[in-house]
Amino acid sequence: MSDRLSLDTLNALDEAGFVAALDGIFEHAPWVAAAASGERPFASVTALHEALMAPIWAASRETQVAFVSAHPDLAGKAARAGDMAPASVAEQAGLGLDRLSDAEYARFETLNAAYRSRFGFPFVVCVRRLTRDAVLDVFERRLGHDPEAELAAALTEIGHITRLRLVERVEGPGMPAVAGRLSTHVLDTHKGGPAQHVRIELFEVGASGRARLAEALTNADGRTDAPLLSGAPLRVGSYELVFHIGEYFRTRALALPDQPFLGQVPVRFGIDDPEGHYHVPLVVTPWSYATYRGS
Amino acid sequence: MSDRLSLDTLNALDEAGFVAALDGIFEHAPWVAAAASGERPFASVTALHEALMAPIWAASRETQVAFVSAHPDLAGKAARAGDMAPASVAEQAGLGLDRLSDAEYARFETLNAAYRSRFGFPFVVCVRRLTRDAVLDVFERRLGHDPEAELAAALTEIGHITRLRLVERVEGPGMPAVAGRLSTHVLDTHKGGPAQHVRIELFEVGASGRARLAEALTNADGRTDAPLLSGAPLRVGSYELVFHIGEYFRTRALALPDQPFLGQVPVRFGIDDPEGHYHVPLVVTPWSYATYRGS
Amino acid sequence: MSDRLSLDTLNALDEAGFVAALDGIFEHAPWVAAAASGERPFASVTALHEALMAPIWAASRETQVAFVSAHPDLAGKAARAGDMAPASVAEQAGLGLDRLSDAEYARFETLNAAYRSRFGFPFVVCVRRLTRDAVLDVFERRLGHDPEAELAAALTEIGHITRLRLVERVEGPGMPAVAGRLSTHVLDTHKGGPAQHVRIELFEVGASGRARLAEALTNADGRTDAPLLSGAPLRVGSYELVFHIGEYFRTRALALPDQPFLGQVPVRFGIDDPEGHYHVPLVVTPWSYATYRGS
Amino acid sequence: MSDRLSLDTLNALDEAGFVAALDGIFEHAPWVAAAASGERPFASVTALHEALMAPIWAASRETQVAFVSAHPDLAGKAARAGDMAPASVAEQAGLGLDRLSDAEYARFETLNAAYRSRFGFPFVVCVRRLTRDAVLDVFERRLGHDPEAELAAALTEIGHITRLRLVERVEGPGMPAVAGRLSTHVLDTHKGGPAQHVRIELFEVGASGRARLAEALTNADGRTDAPLLSGAPLRVGSYELVFHIGEYFRTRALALPDQPFLGQVPVRFGIDDPEGHYHVPLVVTPWSYATYRGS
Repeated sequence: MSDRLSLDTLNALDEAGFVAALDGIFEHAPWVAAAASGERPFASVTALHEALMAPIWAASRETQVAFVSAHPDLAGKAARAGDMAPASVAEQAGLGLDRLSDAEYARFETLNAAYRSRFGFPFVVCVRRLTRDAVLDVFERRLGHDPEAELAAALTEIGHITRLRLVERVEGPGMPAVAGRLSTHVLDTHKGGPAQHVRIELFEVGASGRARLAEALTNADGRTDAPLLSGAPLRVGSYELVFHIGEYFRTRALALPDQPFLGQVPVRFGIDDPEGHYHVPLVVTPWSYATYRGS
Repeated sequence: MSDRLSLDTLNALDEAGFVAALDGIFEHAPWVAAAASGERPFASVTALHEALMAPIWAASRETQVAFVSAHPDLAGKAARAGDMAPASVAEQAGLGLDRLSDAEYARFETLNAAYRSRFGFPFVVCVRRLTRDAVLDVFERRLGHDPEAELAAALTEIGHITRLRLVERVEGPGMPAVAGRLSTHVLDTHKGGPAQHVRIELFEVGASGRARLAEALTNADGRTDAPLLSGAPLRVGSYELVFHIGEYFRTRALALPDQPFLGQVPVRFGIDDPEGHYHVPLVVTPWSYATYRGS
Repeated sequence: MSDRLSLDTLNALDEAGFVAALDGIFEHAPWVAAAASGERPFASVTALHEALMAPIWAASRETQVAFVSAHPDLAGKAARAGDMAPASVAEQAGLGLDRLSDAEYARFETLNAAYRSRFGFPFVVCVRRLTRDAVLDVFERRLGHDPEAELAAALTEIGHITRLRLVERVEGPGMPAVAGRLSTHVLDTHKGGPAQHVRIELFEVGASGRARLAEALTNADGRTDAPLLSGAPLRVGSYELVFHIGEYFRTRALALPDQPFLGQVPVRFGIDDPEGHYHVPLVVTPWSYATYRGS
Repeated sequence: MSDRLSLDTLNALDEAGFVAALDGIFEHAPWVAAAASGERPFASVTALHEALMAPIWAASRETQVAFVSAHPDLAGKAARAGDMAPASVAEQAGLGLDRLSDAEYARFETLNAAYRSRFGFPFVVCVRRLTRDAVLDVFERRLGHDPEAELAAALTEIGHITRLRLVERVEGPGMPAVAGRLSTHVLDTHKGGPAQHVRIELFEVGASGRARLAEALTNADGRTDAPLLSGAPLRVGSYELVFHIGEYFRTRALALPDQPFLGQVPVRFGIDDPEGHYHVPLVVTPWSYATYRGS
């Protein structure tokens, strides 16, 4: 995007300008940018981000806890009150955490309280890498951590949060990999070639239902023209692809039963690696199919 | 069942007794049994049923239409009014056709009227061989038939209805095959053997949701101790098996992601042959699976 | 077989008769049967065999070594000279070890010498559970054992040898499982059912070529009428099934290329468990296939 | 190649120069180039080839037969005597047709005589698009043609032959597609990712044995760095890929039997489309595999 700062510009600023340019990426912690300023020039945006994280990882436990504690509760009072850093507001809103029902809000309040009481700092997680259901799963899993592992987990999450913020603020060589990709491919092994014009729907699957994220048709190579998901982290969570195979085979005019063996083929799968490439193909006949995590 | 009549007994009755013994199987048509009576003795229950159908198939079109017309509308006024042969009552109730919402009732009324107006006789279908959604699919498909094909379709359905009634009334050698079977098998090709203790759920899938029909655990051979469905016709319709593979692989203590690639594996399939054997196995690893109509 | 002794008879003999009845099963070791005699009556042939092995496992190392040393070299001078117990003669002949070329004989001589020099007793293996190639593989693998593991391996093999001899001498309840089974199944997922009339060949694959062991046609259920191998231990080794799928699909009169994608489908696999059940199905279309170790 | 003529140059020559430049592509038929000369300029090499074939397809049957008759017998006396157009010499030599045993030579002589006697012209086939075994298959299949279909088949083959000669003589925009491609991909669904460092061998399979064409290792994406075959027509015929999966899984240090279920996995397949893309992947665990014609 044209309104991002170039890495060259950033490398050339004086320390105050550098700190100001990165304001808000690390919440309430201008000392982070100040500490990294002297390491300039950076050859890549990846190197810049690593240099920003370095003073945090090197800090005393007390400083680390204070740093984490400057973050707002997830879906907490600050979120309700509008009293949160602008970046956090947008990130939490992206997951609908600003529109929780009272019951959901109460569940977060309980988890937040349990977490603070156990660890002494607020729960921090990079919500842009998780579905809403996964946020709760991760929350509960991390409540079982021992305190040292959990402090490291919180700092790692801050690494993820700030990396995403940084790539929206700065452009230049060596951008960090922050985007994942989901793709598919439909092979018709009844005819021995790619299956064209198969309608595919992608859903996010949550405890309270599923939400459609994308719809596409396969092309002459049995693929979709664009990946089903790309350009951003894949949210850790549960998904379902639905391949409308019955419609497809009807167009091939085969002699199939009125009630075909395969109509809509759902493939439910989990994503665990937000920056990964998930290729989930379907190898299909009117009477069989196979799928796998491909590459 | 011990209260069924034996074929030998039936063979030995006088004609009036034979006709009385089969009363209600062919609705309002004692002439059917009377016509078959002289063909006795029958060597098998299958032969008995074929002999009962023979005079119907041999009758004039006028007689056939009158015969079909003696059947009640499906889910129609007679059903609401309780004015229907007892066998029909039970069969329609088995599909919940006696508990339709007003909207559903109205839809059946519309279809019944269109059908009668097109063909001159009521829509007859063997509801014990269909799910509720399939009844509507078949109804609409048959509305597109030409009249001769449709009369034959109606008589064929009466064959199915009466065959099922007959096997509940008479026992003896050569019982007609009226039951289908659904079975499964889970192979774990990660370890190279059957997958034991996999929880499996079976659902009927309808336009308005899915209803659970069965739940089972796989045994040491990766099969369920009993078929998932058996002992009756499989209702033509859409089904879903859900294999709880995530739970299973967790018990194998493999190094898998917190958000596993495969958790619940749904396999949605159609049944078109009520007396058929559907074997729907799952060949699975934590990263792949295949299924097919087996045998 | 009618000329086997019944377990009841064996249970009723006096000790001398019992020892005489089992003569030759444990080579040059009447003390084994004598030691087990007092444990009678045995409820099963399996229990009898375990009771015969028990004094061997309980003996001192010196006695065990002497016991093993009473066995002839594999394919050694005794075999060439005809100076071997009759049971050993037949067993080694079954693998063609009595018809070795001079080069093969020399290789066995070298291995036998190396083995004796390392362990102080001859190499013993149950040749009826191995292909000829597997004998050499096992020989070389066992040369790498440490002495205690190897003595146990030799006794375990004597257990296998004598179990097979025992089931040919004695019949009664609780026969030990000494037979494996190889079966197959061909599913045509192009048409959605079993593939009938598929010709299948089974080969043993060795370093010097492959030898055909069996040929069969699939029946209406896509299976062979009898297992491809059964009734004896499966020889550990390498095998190949060849499914003549091109011929099969030609009979289905599909529109396939002159040079079909699939003609003969070879499936090469290893057998490691002589008493196991190996089910090796083929799920096939003209353009794809899958196979796996099933159950 | 730099020594090819450019299409521009060819378009600019006078007719005599144009005919001379294409000499030998159409055997003993300068009239072909002369007839096409007036159609210049050609926008693509594909259009040039089509324009050269057009007068042949438009000619009288008598001219067509004379044109075909100017070609030498396949592997015939002319080949033995060195009395053949240079292009034909090289093409037939590429298949070893100049090094036939006496028995093979006799078989070709018999086929050539039968063919000439039936059709009145020599058998012409584009040998660069066939394996040696496939040449004989095609020869026998075409002997069954009716005369009109066979004359068209001969002209179609001359189209293939001359297209290949043309792309070696002329370069320019719109080159005809004369090359096929064979690729593979190995997915390890035991670990859920590409299988790296799998050794793969490719063989041509003939009646008298198999000949190794290529060997490759899979890279980090489970693919070979270059296609297994490319840059030329794929010869119609039978092939075998051998995937050394046993070696691969040994490097993963899994707990597998001494005699693994899968060691060398052969995948035998036919190629029917010389200019096609054959993608033949392997989806594999230590206990299962699947393959299919992919894309």
